[in-house]
Amino acid sequence: MSSSYGENIRMTVFGQSHSAAIGVVLEGIPAGKKFSSEKLSAFMTRRAPGRSPASTARKEADIPEFLSGVTANEAGEYTTCGAPLTAIIRNTNQRSGDYDSLKDLPRPGHADYTAHVKYFGAEDRAGGGHFSGRLTAPMCIAGGICLQLLEQQGIRVRARIVSIGQVTDPAPFDAPADPEKFPCVSETAGQEMLENIARARASGDSLGGVIECIAEGLPAGLGDPMFDGMENRIAGLVFGIPAVKGLEFGDGFDAAKRTGSENNDEFAVENGRIITKTNHCGGILGGITNGMPLTFRVAIKPTPSIARTQQTVNLKTLETAEISVPGRHDPCIVPRAVPCVEACAALAIYDALLGRQKELAE
Amino acid sequence: MSSSYGENIRMTVFGQSHSAAIGVVLEGIPAGKKFSSEKLSAFMTRRAPGRSPASTARKEADIPEFLSGVTANEAGEYTTCGAPLTAIIRNTNQRSGDYDSLKDLPRPGHADYTAHVKYFGAEDRAGGGHFSGRLTAPMCIAGGICLQLLEQQGIRVRARIVSIGQVTDPAPFDAPADPEKFPCVSETAGQEMLENIARARASGDSLGGVIECIAEGLPAGLGDPMFDGMENRIAGLVFGIPAVKGLEFGDGFDAAKRTGSENNDEFAVENGRIITKTNHCGGILGGITNGMPLTFRVAIKPTPSIARTQQTVNLKTLETAEISVPGRHDPCIVPRAVPCVEACAALAIYDALLGRQKELAE
Amino acid sequence: MSSSYGENIRMTVFGQSHSAAIGVVLEGIPAGKKFSSEKLSAFMTRRAPGRSPASTARKEADIPEFLSGVTANEAGEYTTCGAPLTAIIRNTNQRSGDYDSLKDLPRPGHADYTAHVKYFGAEDRAGGGHFSGRLTAPMCIAGGICLQLLEQQGIRVRARIVSIGQVTDPAPFDAPADPEKFPCVSETAGQEMLENIARARASGDSLGGVIECIAEGLPAGLGDPMFDGMENRIAGLVFGIPAVKGLEFGDGFDAAKRTGSENNDEFAVENGRIITKTNHCGGILGGITNGMPLTFRVAIKPTPSIARTQQTVNLKTLETAEISVPGRHDPCIVPRAVPCVEACAALAIYDALLGRQKELAE
Amino acid sequence: MSSSYGENIRMTVFGQSHSAAIGVVLEGIPAGKKFSSEKLSAFMTRRAPGRSPASTARKEADIPEFLSGVTANEAGEYTTCGAPLTAIIRNTNQRSGDYDSLKDLPRPGHADYTAHVKYFGAEDRAGGGHFSGRLTAPMCIAGGICLQLLEQQGIRVRARIVSIGQVTDPAPFDAPADPEKFPCVSETAGQEMLENIARARASGDSLGGVIECIAEGLPAGLGDPMFDGMENRIAGLVFGIPAVKGLEFGDGFDAAKRTGSENNDEFAVENGRIITKTNHCGGILGGITNGMPLTFRVAIKPTPSIARTQQTVNLKTLETAEISVPGRHDPCIVPRAVPCVEACAALAIYDALLGRQKELAE
Repeated sequence: MSSSYGENIRMTVFGQSHSAAIGVVLEGIPAGKKFSSEKLSAFMTRRAPGRSPASTARKEADIPEFLSGVTANEAGEYTTCGAPLTAIIRNTNQRSGDYDSLKDLPRPGHADYTAHVKYFGAEDRAGGGHFSGRLTAPMCIAGGICLQLLEQQGIRVRARIVSIGQVTDPAPFDAPADPEKFPCVSETAGQEMLENIARARASGDSLGGVIECIAEGLPAGLGDPMFDGMENRIAGLVFGIPAVKGLEFGDGFDAAKRTGSENNDEFAVENGRIITKTNHCGGILGGITNGMPLTFRVAIKPTPSIARTQQTVNLKTLETAEISVPGRHDPCIVPRAVPCVEACAALAIYDALLGRQKELAE
Repeated sequence: MSSSYGENIRMTVFGQSHSAAIGVVLEGIPAGKKFSSEKLSAFMTRRAPGRSPASTARKEADIPEFLSGVTANEAGEYTTCGAPLTAIIRNTNQRSGDYDSLKDLPRPGHADYTAHVKYFGAEDRAGGGHFSGRLTAPMCIAGGICLQLLEQQGIRVRARIVSIGQVTDPAPFDAPADPEKFPCVSETAGQEMLENIARARASGDSLGGVIECIAEGLPAGLGDPMFDGMENRIAGLVFGIPAVKGLEFGDGFDAAKRTGSENNDEFAVENGRIITKTNHCGGILGGITNGMPLTFRVAIKPTPSIARTQQTVNLKTLETAEISVPGRHDPCIVPRAVPCVEACAALAIYDALLGRQKELAE
Repeated sequence: MSSSYGENIRMTVFGQSHSAAIGVVLEGIPAGKKFSSEKLSAFMTRRAPGRSPASTARKEADIPEFLSGVTANEAGEYTTCGAPLTAIIRNTNQRSGDYDSLKDLPRPGHADYTAHVKYFGAEDRAGGGHFSGRLTAPMCIAGGICLQLLEQQGIRVRARIVSIGQVTDPAPFDAPADPEKFPCVSETAGQEMLENIARARASGDSLGGVIECIAEGLPAGLGDPMFDGMENRIAGLVFGIPAVKGLEFGDGFDAAKRTGSENNDEFAVENGRIITKTNHCGGILGGITNGMPLTFRVAIKPTPSIARTQQTVNLKTLETAEISVPGRHDPCIVPRAVPCVEACAALAIYDALLGRQKELAE
Repeated sequence: MSSSYGENIRMTVFGQSHSAAIGVVLEGIPAGKKFSSEKLSAFMTRRAPGRSPASTARKEADIPEFLSGVTANEAGEYTTCGAPLTAIIRNTNQRSGDYDSLKDLPRPGHADYTAHVKYFGAEDRAGGGHFSGRLTAPMCIAGGICLQLLEQQGIRVRARIVSIGQVTDPAPFDAPADPEKFPCVSETAGQEMLENIARARASGDSLGGVIECIAEGLPAGLGDPMFDGMENRIAGLVFGIPAVKGLEFGDGFDAAKRTGSENNDEFAVENGRIITKTNHCGGILGGITNGMPLTFRVAIKPTPSIARTQQTVNLKTLETAEISVPGRHDPCIVPRAVPCVEACAALAIYDALLGRQKELAE
């Protein structure tokens, strides 16, 4: 099913941009696991709109309401009870009116046209419906919980911006960005990125970018060969973030330009543990973690909603038309996509960890 | 399960490099579908080893033996009977002795070490076991059948080499390569690639590269939002080809450098049908085909098996050791990976086509 | 995942007896399908508690609130929009206090003890948690929608009571019961059943019974061989209704007593269509519908919650204890289980119908 | 997919009665598990035809050939290597000619007609194709391996005949039958059953029966609520055995006739462990094992292939015809179905055991 993911846990995301609520069901988390509502809210805030000049003015509190699957204590700590965990976010701040003029005009770069074909005209088009970037909020609820569960086992996942448009942060893969701020390492690059985003907004345009993610503290042995490798598992989620058009692990496309002697990671021993001297493979060999940091990079296309006039076609009359997308859109969603990428990594890794438990029993 | 794929069809790949046989079970193909054994053999031959200076000297006939699921007529045409289709290839040309000296020495860049951890030392390491590139042969049986079924509906899938190491073929995405020859468009570039591969082999090294794939004739409306988008579906298979480390759709990572006004594909009408004027999105919007050619690009790392001496660690003693991989290995598997990429695309598209049938019934 | 079901549609049921809400996500219903909220409410009412002397006094309006996946018009007609359909029912009438005295005393015949083991003591035990019969309400939302979609295609599903305790309704399989009333055919038998239920209640005891279900108007060709036969599909749902302990198709256990010549259904032709003269097989051969009415029978154990004193064990002290279950419990849930059985049949059949569409495309 | 089963392991059965081979792929068994080929052969022999007056004269050695997933030592002990395990049995003794006269005449009680509809006339009808009872042989390979793995953990599964036709074995659920002989407890009843089978064969007729299965040594906590309860899991497999028409757990249909106070199993403590004083529930509460023996009962219809003349319809002409099924058919398949039922139980339990491992990790 298109809106479900997972082998040992199963996440089902529901909702449309302007439906009564959006939400998520998360099955398979063992009972008795604890997570903090405060930490989860802090994580959700990193994805929330309206926080920075880079993002849309639509403000949504995005505080998850838990309908099932947890018990809560007074300290704001949740404990899973084994039943499917369901959380929703009410949609309170829709301005569907913004979209009325677009009713029959599919926005270039959006799913409007393909949704129209797939759903025979019965699609809920307001705000992008089920295709809206807003649906990454429930993904972040589920992923934010997994992040906390992983952290409890010493596994840390973090993502940051590598580039926005033509501006690149030169920091190495494992350099830490402050998640509370604009999530890139070099302050100069960050400043330049923000200026470029402001310029794009002013000119009715938008920008894309690249996000890097690293997971540290993983045991070797997670994942599977062939179609359930860590790459396949992460890809299955990451391409579910709207606007993702590329994904590479370790050195990715650069590895394709190198020789085997340059690209192979030689083995060594450190503190009685087998490591690799380099990490071109991004911590994954044959789909399975080797105990080194798992690294990947995600390409995000520029936000398709732009104020500039573009050519489109009226779905009813098949006549050519012009469109300029009004509404409050992010000129660059890359900063808000950073926690979404972390959420994807955390979900895929937690799922693989549970899978590994099946094998470890004697 | 790691070695299975699919929602409406299910492909299960089995075997190890040196087990009695490798094979595939393909469930869910409707009954009464016809395919030609001759065409399938021609397709398998494009993947087979021993055909060109670029590939290993190990020769395997790789003719599938069908155990179930089809009936055959005298013209060599198979008809599916509805039951699961199973085909195997006997492993006849193993030289396990080649690997004996490596028994406790994991090859850098290979799954030897991660398989050892995952399988608690019980793994079948000979020739890479279940992680061997040889397992792409059964994938090609299944994909080769889907390619024929798609062709019967006017859908054509083809892939070609874009680059090997530093050499790039400048041809545009939809330029045709001759599948029977070295699969790139520019003859000059192809010649240079072959020379570089020969040089790499001579120096005990190897090369990677990039493969492009295009599917034409697709209806709009295939795929799903979120985790079953065409990108997710193709990624789930493509990352199952050993050595794939990157994947991008349409303009992919390049799109991340552009503005929305550059990257959005404007809509137009052609022959009464909605098209886009450009195809930066690679024929996919919101995970769903828009009727334009579906395009993607795959990064293949250089073959990790190289004759050059590399550092490794003895799994038993944890002592550092040196390794030089003997045996008959491709200095560059990119040419042989081209039909594998086509097979992946065909499987994902055929699966999505069947999914679409569920929706189309009134 | 334990709380999900389906191949072509996927139903995920969430909630606990006393959580904020219970609900269901239904994925895979094609877009543009219509169903009536009035009909759905009427169906839900048949399952709702507090309607008859046979049922619990706990009253829940049980009106589903749709959070996503549909658009509604003023006539109270819903149209699916293709996105996952989510509906919830708020839990408003919990009296958890009823259960406080039972906290460490597992009720005989209930899942209290097994839930305690499985969930390491973190289970939400109030009212049976996720194991409560209350969770059949969301199943009925999903099944009630499928019932309407099937009806639009001329397929009619109905169930009725065959027996309660020792009292049996002698009516044949296809005799119609009035779903608005006590759902059995013979008025005499129905009266006797109600009297027995009243007697059981008065004596602090409870009763079980058997429900029959029939689906008419099915095309031949639904279902699959082996593990996705119509029997397996229906069993996968029906055993999800708490208290179901037996299931048989057609003549079921009686067939085991007969000879082949008695039990085989001979073929004949009627109005140019192949039929069988008898229907011992319940409309299913080799897991696939043969176009005759699909029939099955479900055994429901007596409600385990009874006022009578029973022996149990304190989970903390492991000391023997006595328990008498207070609260407002149905002395016989069989009448309320009738629409649940219809819901299961409708879900399984609708799922199989969609599966058939994949095969029917040329 | 219809011919696959499982959540944590996945079994895929392939083949037709008269295809080149039948077989099974079993994924998800952890690496390093050992099983004996001798024990497996002994188990397969219990299912094999040609062993007793009750069975068909068709003789198949039914020795599995392992194509992948295991390594073997000289003692005939197999060790799983982590990759998908595949075993096949060549079909060597087909006499398709037996079926030629039936080509267009569907046998009453068989899947011939439904297969014809489902597969559009392209089905492989010889010997029942994929619907043949012969397909239980690969199920028994997979189940036989799981039986050994369970035994290594102290879990023992065994089944026996309760009744054949009108003759019932009065032995209680846990009475042991000798699996090497006619698998029922009472010698008198067994003798009578064999006589009745002989009589049925002589008169060109056939008989059905009921099989009981018991699994002992299970930990509490296996299984899941709702749709992945132990009942649902076992039902998903058992209804995959051709001819199964009914299934009940614990007291099953009899429980529906009792009161709650009779049917509830009271808790007690024995050797510091919580037990139930009775076992009406068959060891399952809320879908989850309670640590008591898991018991269920399966109804098998009489073999539909009989020599007696029956009415059928010619599929091509739609004219009425008479049919008498020649060939070598079991007048009663119940004895041979006994190990198949054990195989189903073992597969379901082993799958649930692996699922439990995911939860048990801290």
